[in-house]
Amino acid sequence: MKKSDYFSLKFEDDRLIFCDQTHLPFEEKYIATDDYEVIADAIRRLAIRGAPAIGIAGAYALALAVKIYSSPIHFSNAYETLLSTRPTAVNLRWALNELKQVYEGLSDTCSAYQNLLERALAIHQDDIEKCRMMGEHGLSIFKKPSVVLTHCNTGRFATGGEGTAFSVLRTANEAGLITMVYADETRPLLQGSRLTAFELSRQGIPFTVLPDSAAASLMSAGMIDLVITGSDRIAVNGDAANKVGTYMLAVLCAYHKIPFYIAAPTSTFDPHCPTGADIPIEQRSATEVLHTSGTPVAFPDAQVYNPSFDVTPASLITGIISENGLHLPPYNFRK
Amino acid sequence: MKKSDYFSLKFEDDRLIFCDQTHLPFEEKYIATDDYEVIADAIRRLAIRGAPAIGIAGAYALALAVKIYSSPIHFSNAYETLLSTRPTAVNLRWALNELKQVYEGLSDTCSAYQNLLERALAIHQDDIEKCRMMGEHGLSIFKKPSVVLTHCNTGRFATGGEGTAFSVLRTANEAGLITMVYADETRPLLQGSRLTAFELSRQGIPFTVLPDSAAASLMSAGMIDLVITGSDRIAVNGDAANKVGTYMLAVLCAYHKIPFYIAAPTSTFDPHCPTGADIPIEQRSATEVLHTSGTPVAFPDAQVYNPSFDVTPASLITGIISENGLHLPPYNFRK
Repeated sequence: MKKSDYFSLKFEDDRLIFCDQTHLPFEEKYIATDDYEVIADAIRRLAIRGAPAIGIAGAYALALAVKIYSSPIHFSNAYETLLSTRPTAVNLRWALNELKQVYEGLSDTCSAYQNLLERALAIHQDDIEKCRMMGEHGLSIFKKPSVVLTHCNTGRFATGGEGTAFSVLRTANEAGLITMVYADETRPLLQGSRLTAFELSRQGIPFTVLPDSAAASLMSAGMIDLVITGSDRIAVNGDAANKVGTYMLAVLCAYHKIPFYIAAPTSTFDPHCPTGADIPIEQRSATEVLHTSGTPVAFPDAQVYNPSFDVTPASLITGIISENGLHLPPYNFRK
Repeated sequence: MKKSDYFSLKFEDDRLIFCDQTHLPFEEKYIATDDYEVIADAIRRLAIRGAPAIGIAGAYALALAVKIYSSPIHFSNAYETLLSTRPTAVNLRWALNELKQVYEGLSDTCSAYQNLLERALAIHQDDIEKCRMMGEHGLSIFKKPSVVLTHCNTGRFATGGEGTAFSVLRTANEAGLITMVYADETRPLLQGSRLTAFELSRQGIPFTVLPDSAAASLMSAGMIDLVITGSDRIAVNGDAANKVGTYMLAVLCAYHKIPFYIAAPTSTFDPHCPTGADIPIEQRSATEVLHTSGTPVAFPDAQVYNPSFDVTPASLITGIISENGLHLPPYNFRK
């Protein structure tokens, strides 16, 4: 395998091949399956993660679910199972609803698999293109070669293509506009120091990992030119949910007068959420905080506050990059 | 051992008994030694930590160093070894200098050990009293039963007594003024989820652990009434160095209009540092961020930014609690 040949999702020979990200960065373990419940479980346990990626994986899973049994009840069960895996990212619901529309438009459920698969493949292809476009549009936020801070993972492991915020970093690096990427480790599951560091290294982009709580002192020392993250759901008014810690960065950026950008495809925009207050925030288990790689690292049985996401108000977001371009405030993402 | 009988430092039978905090919360391992180099090493590897505690341990170590050989060159070597263990906390330098004064005032180095030990014991006793006083004075910052957020560990494991910020929490809890303590886990070494959680549990104070990056969302939801932390060095103008992540909390408090307090004994005040810019910040190894309990958890060999401390400007500190009372801005800690 070539150095940059890693991927998160690939559909081949009627099976989804996905990278089980829980083993990264130590092992690139790929799982091939045609069982939608295996994919649902992978989304649940964050083996597949990242808003666009779980949308695409969900779409493939729903297509595979009707490969043998294509009855409405079977479809509906699979749809509900997949929808309930994770509540915050809207891309999953969006992708599942795209396939639902296809299913409901069928005259004959015998052809369900082929029709749904076609839509899933199109969604994946479309995401690849959206990632590429975000990378292009993102160049406009660079005034000079810059030191950029990012949070969580927004690259190939989070999307079907080259990423959201990561695609911007990648394109900017190719254009000579990246001096250094500071990658927050991103507690509790270390998507930054495990996945983003892996991708930055594989793609030869200069990077430094840091504890999430150390970002503020870099900013205070004037060492960060701009911050860019992804998002899991963007409300009509521009409020954006993303990995917990993003809101903290946005407040710190406002305080230090550092531009704060979000990159996300329009499949992340939710016309049904007027504001961030309408976005459901997933609470995850105490184990994620009290254990690391299965080993207890903290006081056992402590009560834990472990929200997977937080909401950054639109007022703190300098700009939002989608495949359509750079959106500036005041935001209005009504369809 | 009774439930609350844990301690960080005890001097008995010409030996220092200390809790090796690297094993907590899983094992309360106490080490007895009369070898100052063992104590220096314990400070270096954070087996003994917390600004007041390393001052006291350093004082005991310097006394033990002259127990058998009391020549000036031997004293001076031990002094330099101990001083160089950790650069940021000023209490260590302060305590070592207190003993140096005693040593330099001796007419005969034969009695060096007894005289230095007497001063070390007095410093320890004094810290116990200072902790108690901070607890008393700290009550004034509570207007009502409150939800308090804290960072790192500031209890018995950080001092010779009941703690700095922790002593305030403890006294407030006894007075019925604590609804909940949110304890930041405090990356990378988890002093919050390992040590503070242990102490809160042992002392029956209600608590919840959280990733450092989740504090902002609690604040945004209006769930935090006040924040209190310790400090490792306070400059004349009130700028305060403390565990990395503290500055982030202070900025978040300013943004959310939440009072931000520091509790520290006057041995933490440095009359030789006019401002926070004069405080040396210790950079620690990449291993602390890339490994947990000896196991790799992140991308190997990544470059890491791992400052042990950051500096909170006085302008963001609502008040500083010392054994002398509650200091309010503008601060001026010239002696």
